[in-house]
Amino acid sequence: MERCVAAKDVAVDANRLWADLMALAEITDPRLPYTRRSFSPLFLEGRRWLAEKFAEAGLTVRTDPAGNLIGQLPGKLPALGVIAVGSHSDTVPSGGRFDGIAGVVNGLEIVRALRDAHVRLDHTIEVIDFLAEEPSEYGLSCIGSRGMSGALEPRMLDMTNSVGETLRDGLRRVGGDPDHLDAARRSDIEAFIELHIEQGIVLESQSLDVGIVTAIVGIRRIEIVFVGEADHAGTTPMALRHDALVAGTRTVAAVRRIAEQMAQEEQDYFVATVGVLTIEPGAANVVPSRCRMVIDARTTNRALIERFTQIIERESGQHAADARVSRAPLAILSDGPPASCDPTLRAVMEQSARELDLTTLDIASGAGHDTAFMTRVCPSGMVFVPCRQGKSHSPEEWADADAIAAGAAVVLQSVKTLDRSLPRKS
Amino acid sequence: MERCVAAKDVAVDANRLWADLMALAEITDPRLPYTRRSFSPLFLEGRRWLAEKFAEAGLTVRTDPAGNLIGQLPGKLPALGVIAVGSHSDTVPSGGRFDGIAGVVNGLEIVRALRDAHVRLDHTIEVIDFLAEEPSEYGLSCIGSRGMSGALEPRMLDMTNSVGETLRDGLRRVGGDPDHLDAARRSDIEAFIELHIEQGIVLESQSLDVGIVTAIVGIRRIEIVFVGEADHAGTTPMALRHDALVAGTRTVAAVRRIAEQMAQEEQDYFVATVGVLTIEPGAANVVPSRCRMVIDARTTNRALIERFTQIIERESGQHAADARVSRAPLAILSDGPPASCDPTLRAVMEQSARELDLTTLDIASGAGHDTAFMTRVCPSGMVFVPCRQGKSHSPEEWADADAIAAGAAVVLQSVKTLDRSLPRKS
Repeated sequence: MERCVAAKDVAVDANRLWADLMALAEITDPRLPYTRRSFSPLFLEGRRWLAEKFAEAGLTVRTDPAGNLIGQLPGKLPALGVIAVGSHSDTVPSGGRFDGIAGVVNGLEIVRALRDAHVRLDHTIEVIDFLAEEPSEYGLSCIGSRGMSGALEPRMLDMTNSVGETLRDGLRRVGGDPDHLDAARRSDIEAFIELHIEQGIVLESQSLDVGIVTAIVGIRRIEIVFVGEADHAGTTPMALRHDALVAGTRTVAAVRRIAEQMAQEEQDYFVATVGVLTIEPGAANVVPSRCRMVIDARTTNRALIERFTQIIERESGQHAADARVSRAPLAILSDGPPASCDPTLRAVMEQSARELDLTTLDIASGAGHDTAFMTRVCPSGMVFVPCRQGKSHSPEEWADADAIAAGAAVVLQSVKTLDRSLPRKS
Repeated sequence: MERCVAAKDVAVDANRLWADLMALAEITDPRLPYTRRSFSPLFLEGRRWLAEKFAEAGLTVRTDPAGNLIGQLPGKLPALGVIAVGSHSDTVPSGGRFDGIAGVVNGLEIVRALRDAHVRLDHTIEVIDFLAEEPSEYGLSCIGSRGMSGALEPRMLDMTNSVGETLRDGLRRVGGDPDHLDAARRSDIEAFIELHIEQGIVLESQSLDVGIVTAIVGIRRIEIVFVGEADHAGTTPMALRHDALVAGTRTVAAVRRIAEQMAQEEQDYFVATVGVLTIEPGAANVVPSRCRMVIDARTTNRALIERFTQIIERESGQHAADARVSRAPLAILSDGPPASCDPTLRAVMEQSARELDLTTLDIASGAGHDTAFMTRVCPSGMVFVPCRQGKSHSPEEWADADAIAAGAAVVLQSVKTLDRSLPRKS
């Protein structure tokens, strides 16, 4: 697939990109590959490695007040502002051989490709390793991109990890400056692009080269609890039961039915899952008295999630009444809004892929990403590369070297195009 | 309710019966009332208390090879054989204030009532405290009644508790003789009656005095496991999922639907419950890859449970196919046959209740009892007394003194009738 790596005169080096990716992945807890948890000594080791690579590539390296590691290559016309490329180098436990670092190393490789071809862009280029995209030990995710977009609220700094350290102190420990978070907010970035593995099977199943992300889903977590009575499973006739699981299972079936319907009938992306369901007391000879579930609903259109919640509220209430159990009011455990990728950036990436003879698909991101926060800062976009069987957040996570190089070539080509085409301040 | 306690000339003493019940219940683990686990020091303490009471009442006391504590009052014509009354004195953890001991103390009170009235029956009377009716730490229930009916198989003696002691050694510890189990088998018992709390809400909800048990359910435990794929809950479109919980919940709904139908349409008792349901990995953002459930199905008619199993096998297979997950073959974890109470004994107990001006209901036992094994030995029957809100196996288990005395009076009257009416060997 040599066709992938050539971006006109400038070209990414697929082998170099892959070698860096594997080298950084190897900085892992050996008992739990591939693990590099944010704020951990291993994470800092990974960042030292990255900082060296950034410096070798001619970038000036700094850590911003929100704990983001940033490598900068000044443009010929720095007043034009910054084009940024990046992702994150932290991982979930036992995952993250590609999730995150593919986008960081991609940024590094783009800078090297430009340097090798003696191309200097008008815009300043930044490669960003956002701090703690994955849920951190403090219970917060996307810490760095929140900071860069002004969404890292002061109260969040009081969150603590399992040993009682505050995020404020953790941030200091990784080189951030929690007392001057305002200085992390950016207004000088004109465009941001993140490359990431798809973490799904859509691209692979259709044998496509890259996905051009349309939007990143908002995620709402809804908790439903049914309470019945723990009657004897032998001596309580069917007609006299108050079985919380019966109401629960009918609700799970409703979640599935409604989600399938919305996914089919609506233009926007919609998925809903019951991944947590527990019953009490949980003995074979006792009618379940309590059933708790957590629904994870995701969509690129906030109106859909509101409608879904209303329908589930009504139907679960009906199932509770039918089973003669009570249902607590629905609890919204968390609720993040969807974020749209910039149409102009999408068009540029689409055009870049076409020039590189790569097949593309407009695709919604069902997972959260730093890009969701970066859309608040500047026009932002994402490129997805296919990964094997959609597996992610597991040691089996895998993407082919060619697939990553193809995505990197699209980002490189897009950066070059944006450098010419971005509106210039008068 | 003085009417209850008078059984013609002979009468049970409701206050004495109640005082004994409360005294035995108080022999409990103080941290976990009311607990007297079989084979424990507390259990043996309870039995010492019982043995003393038996002796005071003029009974000769022995422990048979299967570990049953037996008090015997010889009849005028011992060759006629034995009329036995009893239940068990062991409990589940945190339960058993009435479950079991009500029937044992009932036997004791009957003997005392006969003695007080200077009535000596032709048949020998035995009061039996069966060993370990509740599931024991060795994983086996109804150990004593199994032994008395020849159903305590040699392989069962090799079962071990959590500290590695075999049931064989445990049996020795409580005074049994595992090397001579055959000697526990009985052919000299002509009738057996067990009094027990209903453990359900049927009698209470209809304000009835006693239940005359028609049959004791057979219990089949069926395990069903669905295996799908642990996909990302955000990036996997609804149409590409292999959600094990979706197949599981549809199966739970089917269990409920079919059980309700059978309970309504069939003459025989039928209930089915899913009391155990677990999913893996159990994270809000992951599609469940595994769903395991245990169905507890109970009926007084074995054919129904076979039909139920066939329908569930077919429907769960269909739900697996619909959800694109696999289903392992149904596993039968345990399977006890139903046992019918003796029609002649039922008629005698019915007549006795009528003579005492007590209201009755023919009722199936949805819980297992020692009587189920005793039906293999001799004509056997059960009397249920109402308990509060059907609660059992919990510290809230409660039956009124009057209700228990009413049941005891029915048993006493029935024993007297049987002493006259049982067929006599020529």
